[in-house]
Amino acid sequence: MIYSDDSFTLHTDLYQINMIYTYWQSGIDQKQVVFEAYFRHMPFNNGYVVFAGLAHVIKYLDHLKFSQSDLAYLKSLNLYEDAFLDYLKSWRLTATLRAPYEGEVMFDHEPLLQVEGPLIDAQLLETALLNIINFQTLIATKASRIVTAAEGDPLMEFGTRRAQEFDAALWGTRAAYIGGFNATSNVRAGKLFELPVSGTHAHALVQAYQSDYAAFKAYARTHHDVVFLVDTFDTLKSGVPAAIKIAQEFGKKINFQGVRIDSGDMISLSKTIRQMLDTANFPNAKIYASNDLDEYAIADLKSHGAKIDVWGIGTKLITAFDQPALGAVYKMVSLDGQDTIKLSNDVGKISTPGKKQIWRTTTGDILTLTTEVSTGTPILHDIFLTGKLIYTSPSIHDIQTYAKNALSQLPNDFKKLNQPKKYAVTLSQQLYDAKTAAINRVRQSVKEN
Amino acid sequence: MIYSDDSFTLHTDLYQINMIYTYWQSGIDQKQVVFEAYFRHMPFNNGYVVFAGLAHVIKYLDHLKFSQSDLAYLKSLNLYEDAFLDYLKSWRLTATLRAPYEGEVMFDHEPLLQVEGPLIDAQLLETALLNIINFQTLIATKASRIVTAAEGDPLMEFGTRRAQEFDAALWGTRAAYIGGFNATSNVRAGKLFELPVSGTHAHALVQAYQSDYAAFKAYARTHHDVVFLVDTFDTLKSGVPAAIKIAQEFGKKINFQGVRIDSGDMISLSKTIRQMLDTANFPNAKIYASNDLDEYAIADLKSHGAKIDVWGIGTKLITAFDQPALGAVYKMVSLDGQDTIKLSNDVGKISTPGKKQIWRTTTGDILTLTTEVSTGTPILHDIFLTGKLIYTSPSIHDIQTYAKNALSQLPNDFKKLNQPKKYAVTLSQQLYDAKTAAINRVRQSVKEN
Repeated sequence: MIYSDDSFTLHTDLYQINMIYTYWQSGIDQKQVVFEAYFRHMPFNNGYVVFAGLAHVIKYLDHLKFSQSDLAYLKSLNLYEDAFLDYLKSWRLTATLRAPYEGEVMFDHEPLLQVEGPLIDAQLLETALLNIINFQTLIATKASRIVTAAEGDPLMEFGTRRAQEFDAALWGTRAAYIGGFNATSNVRAGKLFELPVSGTHAHALVQAYQSDYAAFKAYARTHHDVVFLVDTFDTLKSGVPAAIKIAQEFGKKINFQGVRIDSGDMISLSKTIRQMLDTANFPNAKIYASNDLDEYAIADLKSHGAKIDVWGIGTKLITAFDQPALGAVYKMVSLDGQDTIKLSNDVGKISTPGKKQIWRTTTGDILTLTTEVSTGTPILHDIFLTGKLIYTSPSIHDIQTYAKNALSQLPNDFKKLNQPKKYAVTLSQQLYDAKTAAINRVRQSVKEN
Repeated sequence: MIYSDDSFTLHTDLYQINMIYTYWQSGIDQKQVVFEAYFRHMPFNNGYVVFAGLAHVIKYLDHLKFSQSDLAYLKSLNLYEDAFLDYLKSWRLTATLRAPYEGEVMFDHEPLLQVEGPLIDAQLLETALLNIINFQTLIATKASRIVTAAEGDPLMEFGTRRAQEFDAALWGTRAAYIGGFNATSNVRAGKLFELPVSGTHAHALVQAYQSDYAAFKAYARTHHDVVFLVDTFDTLKSGVPAAIKIAQEFGKKINFQGVRIDSGDMISLSKTIRQMLDTANFPNAKIYASNDLDEYAIADLKSHGAKIDVWGIGTKLITAFDQPALGAVYKMVSLDGQDTIKLSNDVGKISTPGKKQIWRTTTGDILTLTTEVSTGTPILHDIFLTGKLIYTSPSIHDIQTYAKNALSQLPNDFKKLNQPKKYAVTLSQQLYDAKTAAINRVRQSVKEN
C-alpha cells in the first residue's frame, strides 16, 4: 500500500467526485439541495425496520475532510485540474443532517436520512451514508425478528467469524444489541461500544485437554460463571456427564450456568439433557444452543418443545442471510427550493419530491413537506446543523430501551414474523399534489425537448 | 466511546480470551498446536473457490499486540487476574502461518490457512482469520462466476452503498478484482490497493441540471471519457437522444464511450439503443448496464440477445446475495505432535486430523500429512515463520493474473455455473489411516470414561 489509510473521505464512488467536478466547473456546487435516503421494500417481509447506524454516520461525518494523501491520489488519476483539488482541500462539511433517533421504528419510503446543504456535500456523502445505514438497519431489524421468536429468552450475538469483514462484525453486533440482543461475543465491540460481552469455550478447549472432564475442570478452576460446550466428542455419553460431574465436584465454587450444544438433533438432545440436568439436581442450569439458528429455527424448535433457554446466533443474523441487503437509495428531492424528482421506466423507482417530515400518529405515519404542520410526533431530528454536530448520542443501553419502547407502541399485528399487517404511511395532500405536479412537469419537459 | 480504536487485537470472541486464561493457568498455553481453516460446502454450488484475504490477514497479524486500552478493557471485565493481563501485555506472535497464494483455486475440506505454534497464538487468531478469509474468498469466488457469465465483457464493481459496512466494501472490491473484475467505483479501494477506478455520473447530475441534455453537456465540458446515464426521465425519448446530440456536438473533443441504463426491460431497451447509436454513426459506443445484476441475470440477458457490452455489478456481488457466508471453520488438528480430532453428532462436522499439505496434480488434489512426500505442486506456503512475516505480497495485478492462470488450468467442466463436475480431493492413505485411528481413539476413550 503506497498511501497510509488516514481518511475515509474517499470511501465514495468515483462518479460522485466526477459529478462534483462538473458542478464546480459550472458554478452550481453550492446550490442548496435536499437529498433523502429511503428503502422501497420491507426486508424479510417484516412489518417495520429498526433504524440503526447513526453513531457511525456521526463518526464518519465529524471532521470529514480530504487528506493530503487523498488529494495526491486524486491528482494521480489525471482526471481533474489542480484548482479543483485546491477546492477539495479547503472543503468542509456545511450541510445539515436529519435522521430518526437510533432505535426508531421506521417504514418503507420514509426518509431515514435527510441531507440539506450545498450540492457538493450531498453528493460526496451519498455512498458512505447508504453503506452504513443500509447494513446496520438491516441487522437491527433481523435481530428484532429473532427477539420476537425467542419470546423473552436471552440472545447472544456470536457471528464475528462469519461476518462480512471486520466492520460488519463490529457495527453489526452493535446493531443487534439495538434490536434487542443481550450480549455479544466480540470483545472489541464490547470495548468500543460498552456492550455486554459473553462467551465461555470452544471445542478446542476439550481437544487441548483431550477429554471433556479434564477440560471442564481446568475451565472451572479459572472461571466462576461457566457454561460447558458438551458436543466435542459425544454429547450424551461424555459431554453432559462430565459437565454434571464438574458441577457436583466444584459445588458453590462455581456458578454452573449450564451447557451449550452446537450440533445434532436439538429437539431430542435438549429434552434428554434437560432430564439429565434435572435428575442431577441442577434444575436452574440452562441449555444454550447455537448452530445456524435464526428466527425460523427458533420458532420451529420452540414449537417442538425443545428445552433450550439461551440462544447463540451467528451467521444468519450477522449477514442477514435470507436478505443480505436493504437496498436503500438516496435521491435529490429539492434543488434551490424547488421540488425535484427522478422518473424511471420502473414505476416503483419514481421518487417523491420535496423536503419532508415524518409525523407519527396513533393511526399511522404521515409524510408532509416541512412547510406543513401536522398532528403527531415528528420523527426526523437535526443531527448536524450547517456542518456542526449538535446531537449527543445516548448510551447504547438507552438506545436499546428506546427501540424497545418504540416497538411496544406498535400493535402485535405489525410484528408478526409472517405476513404482518401493513403499517399505514400516507402522503399529505400537499405532498401528493407536489409529486403529481413534479411528474407532470418532467413529462412535459421531455415532450418539449 | 471511552477507548480510542487503537488495536484490532480484541477483534476476537470472548471465549478465546477465556480459554487462553485457562490454558495459561494450567501451563499449557505454549503447547505446540496446529489449527487449520477449511470450509465444508462449495459456495453457490460452484466447482471451486478463489482464495482471497491474505493481504488483510498479513495486515492484521503484523505487529499484533494488546494495546494499553485493550488491557484496561479486559481488566474492567473482572474476569482475569492481573498476572494474566501482564502476560498478555508481553505476548507477541510466534506462530507460523501457512496459506495458499492469493488467487489460488481451492476446494472444500482443503486448509485455507494453517497456524502452527503456541496454543495461545492459534486460539487468539481464530476469529479474525475466519472473519477475513470467509468473506473475501466468498466474494472472489462470486466475482469469478460473474466473469464466467460475462464471457469476456468488462465488469465494474459498483456495490459500496449496498456492502455490509465499510470494510466489506473496501476488501470486497479488492476480492472482486482478484476474481477477475476490471475496475471498482470505490475511490478509497483504488487509493489503497491500486485498483483501477471507474464511474461517470448518477441520476442526480441530470436532476441538478434539470435535463439530460444540459447535464450531459456540463459533464462533457469537464470530462474526456464519458458514459451518459440515460434513464433519469425517459430513456428512449430523452436520455439516448440527448447523449447522441452531445456526442455529435462535441465530436473529437470527448471520448464518447457509451450510455448506461439502470432500469426497465434491458433486453428491448438495449436492442433499441444499439440501433439508435448505430444509426447515429456511433457503432463503437458501448451500452453499459447496471440494476441488480448477477451471473444468472447476465446469462439470461445474453441468451435473449441483449446488446449490452459492459456490466456494472453491485448488491448481488458485494454481499454474495444468494449465499452471504462461506462458513469456513478452524479446527485443532495436532497437539504436541499428536493428531487430534473433533467428533460430532453431525458426521459432516468431524474434522480430519494432522498437519497437512495439499498437492495439486493433473488428476486432482491430494491431502497428505506434512511428513509425507507426494507428487504434485504444494499449495500451502510459509507466510509468517515463527511470528515473522517472510512473504511479500505480489501486486494486485499479479494476483489477478495468478488467479486467471490457476483457473485456466482447471478444465471447463469444473467451471460451469450450474452443476459443475466435482473436483477430486483425496486423502493420502496415511492421512486416511490417521483419521480412522483418531476417531477410534476418541470413541474408545469416551467408552472408558
